[in-house]
Amino acid sequence: MRNSPAKPVVAIVGTGVIGRSWSRVFARGNCETRVYDHDAKQLNGAIAWLDEDIKLDREDELLNAQRASRERACVKVCRHLREALNGATYVQENGPEDLKSKQSLYAELDRLADPGTILASSTSGQDMTEIAAGLAGASRCIVAHPVNPPHIIPVVEVLPGKLTDPDVTARTCALLENIGQKPVLMNRYVKNFLLNRMQAALIREAIQLVEREVADVNAVDTVIREGLGLRWALMGPLGVADSNADGGVREYFTRFRQPYIEGMDDLYSTPSLDDEMIERLGSRTDEMVGAASRPQVRRWRDRMIRKIRALKEADPPPWTSHS
Amino acid sequence: MRNSPAKPVVAIVGTGVIGRSWSRVFARGNCETRVYDHDAKQLNGAIAWLDEDIKLDREDELLNAQRASRERACVKVCRHLREALNGATYVQENGPEDLKSKQSLYAELDRLADPGTILASSTSGQDMTEIAAGLAGASRCIVAHPVNPPHIIPVVEVLPGKLTDPDVTARTCALLENIGQKPVLMNRYVKNFLLNRMQAALIREAIQLVEREVADVNAVDTVIREGLGLRWALMGPLGVADSNADGGVREYFTRFRQPYIEGMDDLYSTPSLDDEMIERLGSRTDEMVGAASRPQVRRWRDRMIRKIRALKEADPPPWTSHS
Repeated sequence: MRNSPAKPVVAIVGTGVIGRSWSRVFARGNCETRVYDHDAKQLNGAIAWLDEDIKLDREDELLNAQRASRERACVKVCRHLREALNGATYVQENGPEDLKSKQSLYAELDRLADPGTILASSTSGQDMTEIAAGLAGASRCIVAHPVNPPHIIPVVEVLPGKLTDPDVTARTCALLENIGQKPVLMNRYVKNFLLNRMQAALIREAIQLVEREVADVNAVDTVIREGLGLRWALMGPLGVADSNADGGVREYFTRFRQPYIEGMDDLYSTPSLDDEMIERLGSRTDEMVGAASRPQVRRWRDRMIRKIRALKEADPPPWTSHS
Repeated sequence: MRNSPAKPVVAIVGTGVIGRSWSRVFARGNCETRVYDHDAKQLNGAIAWLDEDIKLDREDELLNAQRASRERACVKVCRHLREALNGATYVQENGPEDLKSKQSLYAELDRLADPGTILASSTSGQDMTEIAAGLAGASRCIVAHPVNPPHIIPVVEVLPGKLTDPDVTARTCALLENIGQKPVLMNRYVKNFLLNRMQAALIREAIQLVEREVADVNAVDTVIREGLGLRWALMGPLGVADSNADGGVREYFTRFRQPYIEGMDDLYSTPSLDDEMIERLGSRTDEMVGAASRPQVRRWRDRMIRKIRALKEADPPPWTSHS
């Protein structure tokens, strides 16, 4: 069967932990999904993982047989980069994280890919303005940074470089939305983007509370998982603030401006994270987790996230302009 | 029917938004729940709210008829403080937040309550060492700070004062656990306790990202509600870090120590929160929320949190030493 024009053709370049997860996202989204890796062993490993992960989803009844086989049929293993890129409209690149590697990979992709193909990078920290500097096709290069693993967590940070064509940005967001991801657009580069900054802000305070012996790891974590996190699975910090006062964010921050400023000024700075502190965090976290294996915990976490997402799809927020 | 010794008798003193929600927690937990307020109008309002809220839960099928009537039957309206305290083993105090008011209320409670009664405060910021300073019964006074509303969000920050009897702390935690809340024990007083510190850390970075026009309110909030928040409903920041590497927290922070330290050092300080910035946050949040009314959003939020909690109860974490 030939591709109908409606079926996007996507190339996954680099099939480590992020790339293999992306293959599930695009295949589930009914894209022809070419997977390629310079390292044949890594590519074989990704395919084995894909089969195993789909099998586990079947066992957890998160996927029926028909969808599972449709998803698997969308994935095409490519042994050569040209073969993966030929006719692809979108490339999701997942190479090593250093700037030099990204630059040389982007030079190769820009040389080999069809002129209209979007070249999107999963980088969690590089600036596309630098990666694509000097490339003829800099205007088609963009960052699309997922959260690990993207087939479970839908948010994708989309960050154009200075030379990126606005149409490339729009098409990237549209493709990601069409396959069920949640793209968020950044206006400009900042170190660590949005998600890792906010994660670092929370964990900085959490580690300090343990370091200063205000509370134990399990106490700090319980405050999140049985408190704030229950809201944050539904609404971000501004949405929460808005719902907390009848007059919304305006009333909330006007009424609590002074305590908020004082509270923010009182927050801790970067903790030591020396070997002794890491060991302390490790042993207290071990006490919390007990003998459960980490793959077992991850499997539970990922299954539960999918159940929470299903709840949200079944009973969406009453926001009338929800995007 | 007389109380069996197994049925705790609890007095709710102060029935504003927090107190009335506590009445649902204790009544649902099958405690004899005396509700009292110095202000008769506030007390009447709390009872009207209770009836309405139980009715809404019935409509949302979150509560069956039998449980609803059992819960309602546990609530006893008291028109005099002595009547509320007589025979109570635990008082949950929800008075005004300033130290002077707390001190005078605690003097009254300590004078009127039976000697063994625990006097717990919902204060979100005062130190029990100061509230109970000079009281004969300082050893039975403790902070039990809930999240609003406690009948939806289970975490309770438990903070003994310097004179609090360890047995009072243990009994407070046990009672809260028995009725389905999640007490977390703090070792010592810090400004804003644990939850409001971590909330301030996240929102400080979120507001700065908007203030500096790195991204819009909806983008920043989406990163949380479709990203980090999906995990944080299940695991706190240390649990997440532990699950992210096969060697757990030790491997995670050893491997990423340098980028974490640099990322934490790069976080923003307190934003301006001036009138112009609050107005900008307000208008961007309005765009995100659209025409939905805030009571409607809160109702959705609370219903969804209860559904997420039910998911977690049905499929608990594989942690073997989970507390």
